Amino acid sequence: MKNTLGNVVKLTVFGESHGDAVGCVLDGIPAGLPVNEEYIQKQLDMRQSLPEISTSRREPDQVRILSGVRNGYTEGTPITFILENTNVRRKDYDALAGVLRPGHADYTAQLKYHGYQDASGGGHFSGRLTAPMTAAGALCRSLLEKYGVVIGSHIAQLYNVQDQGLPADPEAVRKLNEKMFAVLDEQAEKEMLELIRDAREQGDSLGGILETVILGLPGGLGEPLFGSVESVIAEAMFSIPGVKGIEFGSGFRFAEMYGSEANDAFIVRDDKIQTETNHNGGINGGITNGMPVVFRTVIKPTPSISRTQKTVDMKTMEETGIEIHGRHDPAIIHRARTVVDNLTAFVLVDLLTEVYGVTWPEVLKCA
Amino acid sequence: MKNTLGNVVKLTVFGESHGDAVGCVLDGIPAGLPVNEEYIQKQLDMRQSLPEISTSRREPDQVRILSGVRNGYTEGTPITFILENTNVRRKDYDALAGVLRPGHADYTAQLKYHGYQDASGGGHFSGRLTAPMTAAGALCRSLLEKYGVVIGSHIAQLYNVQDQGLPADPEAVRKLNEKMFAVLDEQAEKEMLELIRDAREQGDSLGGILETVILGLPGGLGEPLFGSVESVIAEAMFSIPGVKGIEFGSGFRFAEMYGSEANDAFIVRDDKIQTETNHNGGINGGITNGMPVVFRTVIKPTPSISRTQKTVDMKTMEETGIEIHGRHDPAIIHRARTVVDNLTAFVLVDLLTEVYGVTWPEVLKCA
Amino acid sequence: MKNTLGNVVKLTVFGESHGDAVGCVLDGIPAGLPVNEEYIQKQLDMRQSLPEISTSRREPDQVRILSGVRNGYTEGTPITFILENTNVRRKDYDALAGVLRPGHADYTAQLKYHGYQDASGGGHFSGRLTAPMTAAGALCRSLLEKYGVVIGSHIAQLYNVQDQGLPADPEAVRKLNEKMFAVLDEQAEKEMLELIRDAREQGDSLGGILETVILGLPGGLGEPLFGSVESVIAEAMFSIPGVKGIEFGSGFRFAEMYGSEANDAFIVRDDKIQTETNHNGGINGGITNGMPVVFRTVIKPTPSISRTQKTVDMKTMEETGIEIHGRHDPAIIHRARTVVDNLTAFVLVDLLTEVYGVTWPEVLKCA
Amino acid sequence: MKNTLGNVVKLTVFGESHGDAVGCVLDGIPAGLPVNEEYIQKQLDMRQSLPEISTSRREPDQVRILSGVRNGYTEGTPITFILENTNVRRKDYDALAGVLRPGHADYTAQLKYHGYQDASGGGHFSGRLTAPMTAAGALCRSLLEKYGVVIGSHIAQLYNVQDQGLPADPEAVRKLNEKMFAVLDEQAEKEMLELIRDAREQGDSLGGILETVILGLPGGLGEPLFGSVESVIAEAMFSIPGVKGIEFGSGFRFAEMYGSEANDAFIVRDDKIQTETNHNGGINGGITNGMPVVFRTVIKPTPSISRTQKTVDMKTMEETGIEIHGRHDPAIIHRARTVVDNLTAFVLVDLLTEVYGVTWPEVLKCA
Repeated sequence: MKNTLGNVVKLTVFGESHGDAVGCVLDGIPAGLPVNEEYIQKQLDMRQSLPEISTSRREPDQVRILSGVRNGYTEGTPITFILENTNVRRKDYDALAGVLRPGHADYTAQLKYHGYQDASGGGHFSGRLTAPMTAAGALCRSLLEKYGVVIGSHIAQLYNVQDQGLPADPEAVRKLNEKMFAVLDEQAEKEMLELIRDAREQGDSLGGILETVILGLPGGLGEPLFGSVESVIAEAMFSIPGVKGIEFGSGFRFAEMYGSEANDAFIVRDDKIQTETNHNGGINGGITNGMPVVFRTVIKPTPSISRTQKTVDMKTMEETGIEIHGRHDPAIIHRARTVVDNLTAFVLVDLLTEVYGVTWPEVLKCA
Repeated sequence: MKNTLGNVVKLTVFGESHGDAVGCVLDGIPAGLPVNEEYIQKQLDMRQSLPEISTSRREPDQVRILSGVRNGYTEGTPITFILENTNVRRKDYDALAGVLRPGHADYTAQLKYHGYQDASGGGHFSGRLTAPMTAAGALCRSLLEKYGVVIGSHIAQLYNVQDQGLPADPEAVRKLNEKMFAVLDEQAEKEMLELIRDAREQGDSLGGILETVILGLPGGLGEPLFGSVESVIAEAMFSIPGVKGIEFGSGFRFAEMYGSEANDAFIVRDDKIQTETNHNGGINGGITNGMPVVFRTVIKPTPSISRTQKTVDMKTMEETGIEIHGRHDPAIIHRARTVVDNLTAFVLVDLLTEVYGVTWPEVLKCA
Repeated sequence: MKNTLGNVVKLTVFGESHGDAVGCVLDGIPAGLPVNEEYIQKQLDMRQSLPEISTSRREPDQVRILSGVRNGYTEGTPITFILENTNVRRKDYDALAGVLRPGHADYTAQLKYHGYQDASGGGHFSGRLTAPMTAAGALCRSLLEKYGVVIGSHIAQLYNVQDQGLPADPEAVRKLNEKMFAVLDEQAEKEMLELIRDAREQGDSLGGILETVILGLPGGLGEPLFGSVESVIAEAMFSIPGVKGIEFGSGFRFAEMYGSEANDAFIVRDDKIQTETNHNGGINGGITNGMPVVFRTVIKPTPSISRTQKTVDMKTMEETGIEIHGRHDPAIIHRARTVVDNLTAFVLVDLLTEVYGVTWPEVLKCA
Repeated sequence: MKNTLGNVVKLTVFGESHGDAVGCVLDGIPAGLPVNEEYIQKQLDMRQSLPEISTSRREPDQVRILSGVRNGYTEGTPITFILENTNVRRKDYDALAGVLRPGHADYTAQLKYHGYQDASGGGHFSGRLTAPMTAAGALCRSLLEKYGVVIGSHIAQLYNVQDQGLPADPEAVRKLNEKMFAVLDEQAEKEMLELIRDAREQGDSLGGILETVILGLPGGLGEPLFGSVESVIAEAMFSIPGVKGIEFGSGFRFAEMYGSEANDAFIVRDDKIQTETNHNGGINGGITNGMPVVFRTVIKPTPSISRTQKTVDMKTMEETGIEIHGRHDPAIIHRARTVVDNLTAFVLVDLLTEVYGVTWPEVLKCA
């Protein structure tokens, strides 16, 4: 569906990195729900580069809600978010026109748009498009928070450094959500930041693995087969630039397990059916089972590096070298984390709306 | 979208494992394309259990095309596939009613359908629903084959045994596609089969990792952000029961790479722009770049095992044990492989149609 | 969306008139709702030709529910309806191959499907495809009936004969719904039947106008702008072969009214806000206002007539004459009425589900 | 689909009449097509009130294209149109809060949004939302014009005055398209304007009937059954506030015709198959046949009238009177005409894209 995501609630993104603005339309949120603009702005701020490790441009990312919200409440009509592009430097990019940046979408954009694409800063492919996704998702996330659904992610791995496990505890996750660089283990955090700074100095970059947990989500969401919770979360996550893999629960580790290990035994706790382990990441047969939903996404190293790379000049069809100057992040995983969390919130609101329609806030309240 | 997959070409599946029939409707294939029923039947046969390792029931899986095909050509109208359920044994399952099978969808089905679900054999959650997916996908795949697009998968890993790498060579892939148990390395194949037979004897099961390659696909397919090739393939793959993870190109290994390693340098070969490596799995910015598309899916061990497991009886809300009898596969990865290959073909036809409409066969022919 | 109708609940039709079968998949009905198969069969019977005025073939139209229903209740999974084609006479049509039937889709089918269409009996364009629409709609309609929503239509006009007005009274509508030839005024009914018999004797045919009323529908359904109740009903009605116009409330008569006449004054009756008149047909700004929803559809005369007509032979590109033999109805308006009523029920269930999700039966129960 | 229209090309509208702005996102237009901003602005100007008959506010309606267009060409990415609301007078409306305006959506908005709707000037229900529809449609229409598809409408009837017939001649239609008040017959135009001025003096309003013709459209567009050209055009037209009926070709006059009159005989002219008459309005079996597509829409009298009307105060639930002051049009049919024409263009581009994908401009060029 091109630039629209969602089955019943729809999120349509638009804009180019160095055009006038980026933004999105969020349609299908019921009327009368509170809009926490402060929360939305805070999420946008958390999506920013970390000054201590980045040379990236810092757009203020001031969001303007153009429609669908009045006096702090949703009107039930489409909610439009606009972020003007204030710090545009088209010249940084024009120099490269025709010379393909490895790992970027320059070449595929050419194949698809035949020279009419806006190549500056990645244009419509830019990570900047995740700002409106974050804004719309943050609106959803603050509603979920209000009704007891908590989403959080940490950087589980960066190069050879691993963080400790993410606890299935709402308070711990809320605390994690306050951190700009979301690592639980202090030593691991220090090492990761060190690695990123080293990469920056070498004109290089790093990726990593995010682990996300959703707590408080009711069972019974999702569909068997098409429309599985895995399908809709994966579809959304792969729309975030740089995401190249996703796994739920034990994920790829299932390959080395026996069924007798992989099956989560059912037990009764607090008069509720639960599972003793959670290898399936809270999802059986595509449907939530009431346990924490857990998934991991891998983010590839950001492709903009200043080291000389081998590439091709499309105009001459000759091989050449490229050095990418300008403002770039040596790592974006801490920024991707904010996008993952908030976009996940959008997906959950869509899932809830698909099942319960406009009554979903009532259903959550009573859960 | 519940039981319908696809953006422009639509695949709607229906049926329950132990109901009258399973089937699907495939809508959006242009008129006048040849339908190779023999090829479709062969794919359905390859989705069957391997007798040497399985105790599973073998449905003949004879497909009937009910509409949309006449004299061996598509009519341009919806194509309906029906597979009658001939070998139904509802009694095997009634005994378990109320006692939840770990790793299965029994509990989530209850949460969603409140007792009205058909629990026999997994009902609508059953792996049997992948038979109509395979049939519809096989129709698409034989068309792609005709125009030079080749899809193939091998079992890259099963427990601790790894297969050799999958070559990006159409002939090698076609040869692989003839094998029921798709492993390239003879010794690895032997060891994997041995592991599965051992698991069966222990009343246990195994999963594994499939690696899939798509050759001959033109560049420029897919969309930036939502609608990326990764998004649409992942959405489809996670609708296959048992799939719990997917990665494209270097996937989770990106976490341990530097940007300078991860970026695929552009080069000119045969007067075409190509990449020297293929860490991005043929996809940049969500769009195909003309290189082989490569992805890996993990299949969890089949949850039906005869070993005693801890679980809960929903009727009494008491913890109990369960032993699952009946006919089961100790591994389904070789069957999942056929579903992955053919469902991928459906996704590609949808992608091609989204861009080129009914002219896509012409576009492939000229590519 | 080609052969799928509906925003949240989806109806996918398939089949050709003289192929193996026609059918449909209805997806999105919540689990646990009663399926009244007798009611469904009765609606299919009412869609049949009237023996006293028709020479048409009478398919038994025995519906088979292939999936999604167990022990008389919906399972929550896709519901598949199949009607085998038992009385197929391909020879009646082969004689005409290449000679275009005026008013039919022979020529446009050729433009779209380039000779691969099944021309027999109209193929996928046949009125026979309204049988599965009727079956799926009847399932929806019996649920609506259960919760107090009543739908009914009468033949408001046939040639120069007009029926009396349709009362906004559930009991009167239910009584009307028992009649095969839905006319309220006895004299008008007699004259209409006479006109049809005359047309048949002259080898000619007649159309007419259906007036439909929906009672008991809650206010607040539909959307402003796109997704208006008028939009979704009109979209569905124009999928019924032969429908060439639709108007809501005073419809085309609005052209000759002043605003002061056309505006429906608000009043309070039974402690509820109502309107004194109902020129807007129960819909303001695209959304139901709680008053009866009223619309009228015009059905063109059935194009199959035995009188000689001027036409073209596509093979020779020469003008020629055509006489259409075989079994045909001189009027189908009484059959179209059953399709209109039942397909409307599907649209309402989709509208209710879009707003209330699976809770819609509860909402209706409490209304 | 709430605020999104279209099957493959998507149009998403947003905004409230007296909010910050109204706008839309148009997604799915191929890259590299010229954007005629002058043409778009001209269509917006033609959607304005006629000063000689109106007391309505005149927003300058200056459109800003925020994304998707660069150097006068489409980029292939979503195109965003914004129209700031400059002349907002919320006070005119606050006085009426709680007192329902007859014929308006005040009451249904309350039923749907429970007090959270923006009631000023109709909010999201306002005719002002047709401005972005017009802008997006105008972009499509100028492309169609370029490739020989001409769309035009005239006011066929206003109260008891009828215009002469609309000729199926591109030059005549282009000439008509230059007129603000689209009537062919001079005397009829004079009488209609007189009627509107009289209505204004009486504090009343008038509606009318628009007749639209599409010339140069290739045959073979649309789908049988769901997705018929009638379905998709009707769905779009009923999203325009005030439209309460639509008919194709002979429309409601089919009720008084015999099949032998209604069937359009096929003939050969200029070596092409055509029909001798065009009762079916260029559409057979839901698919275009290459003849002019003709349809008529009825626009109800604008509900805002200054004459005292009976109504209810929602706050007190008591009946009361209402006089609507402020700026209003005594007729909007000449404005609706611009919306109909341009929104029709969007629908045609969607239809063309559904069949031919991004190759549709090539297909039109070669037709």
